[in-house]
Amino acid sequence: MTISKYHQQHEVWQNLKSADSNVLEAMLQKIIDGIEEPDRESAAAMERRLDAKIKPRKSLGVLEDIAQQLAGIYRTPHPKIKKKAVLLMAGDHGVVAEGVSAAPQEITAQMFYSFLAGKAGINVLARHAGAEVICTDVGMVPPLNPPELMTNRIKNGTDNIMHGPAMTRREALLAILTGAKIAAETIDSGYNLLATGEVGIGNTTPSSALIAVFTGEKVEDITGSGTGLKNEALRHKQTVIKKAIEINKPDPESPLDTLAKIGGLEIAALTGVILEAAYQHVPIVLDGIISTAAALAAAKLAPRTTAYMISSHNSEEPGHCLALKYLGLQPRLEIHMRLGEGTGAALMFPIVEAALKIADEMATFEDAGVTDGDF
Amino acid sequence: MTISKYHQQHEVWQNLKSADSNVLEAMLQKIIDGIEEPDRESAAAMERRLDAKIKPRKSLGVLEDIAQQLAGIYRTPHPKIKKKAVLLMAGDHGVVAEGVSAAPQEITAQMFYSFLAGKAGINVLARHAGAEVICTDVGMVPPLNPPELMTNRIKNGTDNIMHGPAMTRREALLAILTGAKIAAETIDSGYNLLATGEVGIGNTTPSSALIAVFTGEKVEDITGSGTGLKNEALRHKQTVIKKAIEINKPDPESPLDTLAKIGGLEIAALTGVILEAAYQHVPIVLDGIISTAAALAAAKLAPRTTAYMISSHNSEEPGHCLALKYLGLQPRLEIHMRLGEGTGAALMFPIVEAALKIADEMATFEDAGVTDGDF
Repeated sequence: MTISKYHQQHEVWQNLKSADSNVLEAMLQKIIDGIEEPDRESAAAMERRLDAKIKPRKSLGVLEDIAQQLAGIYRTPHPKIKKKAVLLMAGDHGVVAEGVSAAPQEITAQMFYSFLAGKAGINVLARHAGAEVICTDVGMVPPLNPPELMTNRIKNGTDNIMHGPAMTRREALLAILTGAKIAAETIDSGYNLLATGEVGIGNTTPSSALIAVFTGEKVEDITGSGTGLKNEALRHKQTVIKKAIEINKPDPESPLDTLAKIGGLEIAALTGVILEAAYQHVPIVLDGIISTAAALAAAKLAPRTTAYMISSHNSEEPGHCLALKYLGLQPRLEIHMRLGEGTGAALMFPIVEAALKIADEMATFEDAGVTDGDF
Repeated sequence: MTISKYHQQHEVWQNLKSADSNVLEAMLQKIIDGIEEPDRESAAAMERRLDAKIKPRKSLGVLEDIAQQLAGIYRTPHPKIKKKAVLLMAGDHGVVAEGVSAAPQEITAQMFYSFLAGKAGINVLARHAGAEVICTDVGMVPPLNPPELMTNRIKNGTDNIMHGPAMTRREALLAILTGAKIAAETIDSGYNLLATGEVGIGNTTPSSALIAVFTGEKVEDITGSGTGLKNEALRHKQTVIKKAIEINKPDPESPLDTLAKIGGLEIAALTGVILEAAYQHVPIVLDGIISTAAALAAAKLAPRTTAYMISSHNSEEPGHCLALKYLGLQPRLEIHMRLGEGTGAALMFPIVEAALKIADEMATFEDAGVTDGDF
């Protein structure tokens, strides 16, 4: 495994858990400070390329927006997508003890093994899109076999946010930097289009809590049924989220404090994935509510990050669409999914690729001898 | 070229233009009467397959809906998509004399040549999806070179609907049956997933008129800017549509009368494509407002046809979404396109294919040893 050329401190990155907290804070700050605006010149050059194609100006809508965005991100008018990957982060949640999930906690690790076996929904949809799925345990509860699967585990699940913080500030930092490290390694291996994915029974609860704190919107307007709660259980989940926020008093202006107090290990890791992608000029496709909660944290830490994000679907969780709106993004796929894992993001990959094919393969008015009336 | 086993009258199909009108009416009626309901047992069996997969029930939303729909259409719990094609119909419109389009009429044929050269938007997006584009001139104005390209041309463009009917009832019949013939030939060549595409400068005008008549909604709520009209020109277009309806008095209960009076040759041909697809148990992906106007006509002729339709995007034309609603369909892609050609439908192909891969490649709870809690 190599570490990105952007990261000089190779040794430290390989041994995050033994680094001083001050060093970790500095590493995160370096990423945040290093995130640039996308290149406007390249985006403008792409716009000119698209305007010359045999179609009314802007008539390919979002495809043209994405092509311009990719030109800006990759800093070239002729961007190329090389390899694609879904970075899937796994973690467990102490708050499941409150009965906030219809599914038992043991499923997190069972699904993790299914991902490794290539047999789950995200594997099927990523394969369909020609993408890899790269799975990392950053905080599940049960021991894994073989134990090497736990190399990146920071903690055996979060603590119950009804009784105190999910994790320490240091643990949140470690989770973010672990996500950044996985993203850096993936990018160094030639992947230049990433998506966020996750598994973690109960994780719509901390995600909804994070969205409530970061957006200031009401818990009732954000919280949905996750993977299958009925009415009464949904009201209970909303009560749990409100109490968790009340007890922990996260500071909305400090994403690190908020992630530590009411977040999750896999959520913080996805925040790191998103930050590192932006730092390295790589676009990142967002999946559902968990990914979007992580994206809100990333945008709070480094507002320029939003320019690197590509939205995918509008999941069944009400907080998802609301969080996208706060990021200035709109859902592109109306497919009523609520599985997570990165499945919605994987379905967006072919559309992202289509955007660049339009730029590369369509004829211009001049080439094709088609009348160009500037319509 | 072979003709479907469903059509016995091979000779007549190859020489539609020399057939008696009574024969043509009977041929259309045979298709209409032959359209069956999809098979409920196969759809239910697919639902059971999907419910056994390692995911919360129904959590893949529209993917699961499409998988069940395809099982019903193909009449098997294990449907397979073989080859995919966009059937693109081309026609011109006399009403462009009223200044209802930002683009000149010569562009229709210029674009037709671009499609044949594989260089237009639909070629790029169909290729991206692994689909063919099959182009047919059913009614453009200028002569084509080589002349064989005009084999299926019924008329050199429609007449101006501001002064009288677009075409005769016989011409509308011929256009529908020509579309059906092309669909039958395509299906006989092994294609079992089709999409509708079109080119025809000015064709959002007859499409909007058709949608107004078939739905009874106001012209102002339906009519958009096509490929680029500004405000005043848009009001003019609405006036033209209202006058065309007033002058021609189409009978909303007779789709053939309505198509003939205020429709278009390529629109009627797409109606035929849709009817034939349904007749032969083949799903048909709809593109934008022109395709959806054709689909409304098909559904008026044979209501069972809607079960064979798969919606794709929500174009920028207001009448499009409204027409989809009348068909009981919802847009799946929010990508703000307004190019036509079948481009939105082509982007839907990978999602349709993903639906069946879920059924075929995902593990079941039992296979994967994942706890199944019926959540």
